[in-house]
Amino acid sequence: MADSKYNFNGSLWVELNSEPVLGPGRVELLERIEQTGSIRQAAQQMGMSYAQAWKMIDHINTHFGEPIVISHRGGKGGGHAELTAKGKHLSLAFKAFHQQFREYLQEQSKLLDL
Amino acid sequence: MADSKYNFNGSLWVELNSEPVLGPGRVELLERIEQTGSIRQAAQQMGMSYAQAWKMIDHINTHFGEPIVISHRGGKGGGHAELTAKGKHLSLAFKAFHQQFREYLQEQSKLLDL
Repeated sequence: MADSKYNFNGSLWVELNSEPVLGPGRVELLERIEQTGSIRQAAQQMGMSYAQAWKMIDHINTHFGEPIVISHRGGKGGGHAELTAKGKHLSLAFKAFHQQFREYLQEQSKLLDL
Repeated sequence: MADSKYNFNGSLWVELNSEPVLGPGRVELLERIEQTGSIRQAAQQMGMSYAQAWKMIDHINTHFGEPIVISHRGGKGGGHAELTAKGKHLSLAFKAFHQQFREYLQEQSKLLDL
């Protein structure tokens, strides 16, 4: 019994009209697009193909009923991608709550070992 | 956009030595055993078979490395089941945190629609 270590764990996602649309993986992709300005670089950093990342973004943009990522193709720099205001807001709100949630889980876990 | 309704959702479970061991379904079973004093009645209330409930409890008792449900067979009343102190504690702690978590999700969801 002394070596039994209990803890709470959990998961968190955003729903739109009761459908899951955004979890930690997608939010990480959005953040990396915002940081790099590039879907290709964001995909590379996460070890996914450009096609996979595009598919995810297309899915996000379609399901959100409003643009979340805007992509400007071509040009000297080879295109540029950025989040819309809503995209930034959702991504920041998720990240902040997710961080809080992880801390909350840790804190509450202390109660399990009493 | 006006009819887009965002909300947070999430799930919660208890881990023992980093393995998931207890979620809302099992906790409900434990609670109903505590309330009814009977594995059979608890199973019936949840629409599961006695065998299923037994299997779940056996799994819980085995994986927790300490008894969570104690069952006294036979006797006039047809047997009696109850939670150990640890079982009661885990079940109450989970329920309290789960309730808090649901409220927390609702409250945080307000931030998504800004």
